[in-house]
Amino acid sequence: MSTQDKPIHIAMLLYDNMTSLDFIGPFDVFGIMPNSKIRTVAKQAGPIRIDAGIPLLNAQHSLSEVTEADILFVPGSIDNSHIQKDDEILDWVRRIDRTSRWTTSVCTGSLILAAAGLLKGVRATTHWAVLQTLEPHGAIPTQERVVRDGKYVTGAGVSAGIDMALTLAALEHDEMTAKCVQLAIEYDPQPPFDGGSPATAPKEVVERTFELLVAAMGSR
Amino acid sequence: MSTQDKPIHIAMLLYDNMTSLDFIGPFDVFGIMPNSKIRTVAKQAGPIRIDAGIPLLNAQHSLSEVTEADILFVPGSIDNSHIQKDDEILDWVRRIDRTSRWTTSVCTGSLILAAAGLLKGVRATTHWAVLQTLEPHGAIPTQERVVRDGKYVTGAGVSAGIDMALTLAALEHDEMTAKCVQLAIEYDPQPPFDGGSPATAPKEVVERTFELLVAAMGSR
Repeated sequence: MSTQDKPIHIAMLLYDNMTSLDFIGPFDVFGIMPNSKIRTVAKQAGPIRIDAGIPLLNAQHSLSEVTEADILFVPGSIDNSHIQKDDEILDWVRRIDRTSRWTTSVCTGSLILAAAGLLKGVRATTHWAVLQTLEPHGAIPTQERVVRDGKYVTGAGVSAGIDMALTLAALEHDEMTAKCVQLAIEYDPQPPFDGGSPATAPKEVVERTFELLVAAMGSR
Repeated sequence: MSTQDKPIHIAMLLYDNMTSLDFIGPFDVFGIMPNSKIRTVAKQAGPIRIDAGIPLLNAQHSLSEVTEADILFVPGSIDNSHIQKDDEILDWVRRIDRTSRWTTSVCTGSLILAAAGLLKGVRATTHWAVLQTLEPHGAIPTQERVVRDGKYVTGAGVSAGIDMALTLAALEHDEMTAKCVQLAIEYDPQPPFDGGSPATAPKEVVERTFELLVAAMGSR
């Protein structure tokens, strides 16, 4: 199936207020990918209160238990400004990045990579609603679904994690392996509507979606 | 935003060996949808060991704590034959279904609905690899991404949960609301490869994917 037979160590960060789909898209893709050894990591091992306000996810390891990885993954959140200022997490992200073949994110996870100083002069993406906030950190905001610049592979908002992780499966293994993972999760998307991107959505939908996101931030 | 202002009570089943992406796609879509009141439910409240072998998810409620719902959701698994024979879970599924406006599933979740006797003469779908196993339960296997027959809305394999839940958001609210949720999760999928469905994948990819799924079953 794959040219890659050694274990692939994958460290996936979890944190309070994160968005669960940002994380689980890549988690499932990496999990089906052969030879993956996934470790879920947070400040403390145990329950993680996600953005919907409930402790839906569990982290297996605390930051200090994981000191290196072949792939580092950081998910996003409707508001992760608290993580962008958290030196303990930023130090860990920098430490793992020094050991990684690939450093990856989905949605506003890239703002955490940027806050850690890893994306200076690097093309990167994030959720469409906050794309320009990459710039103050020195990254080059790039409105594409999946952006690869050197070892940094960033995905756009939330659901883009599936596309990002399949892209990485092909980079880490080969195209045949990635195609099999894609078929295993029956990834033949048929969105019921057009307009899943601000480039194609009518202005009214974009405005109302901003309201929906702001309301979600307020209630969480 | 929406014509629906009353709380929408959503009961989402969790069980050991389930596939996390089956669950989290709909969870995030329902979570962003206005007025949702989601309850996660399992035989016992607490950690759920998913198919990757780790206790990644937490259930808030035990079965006996949740006795009705507007929307019932059942996720799939690489092997949920143990749940298809579990009278406690099947009784709960039947009880909630008697109160629901919509009874829904993703992937092999429909085999649990079928085992509970809810899909007799009903058009339904599941993961492509096991589509025909719906038939012995009296359901009508239907190879479409999202299948609605009356109040039963079933999604195909794993990633189809996002399409299923967005379809349901439009049915429960209206198209504008569903379009906003779709844009909020930036659901503008760009699979890196063709062939996410057995209808379009080359024979070699289908055969190797079967091997990958069988290997995954053996290791979990």
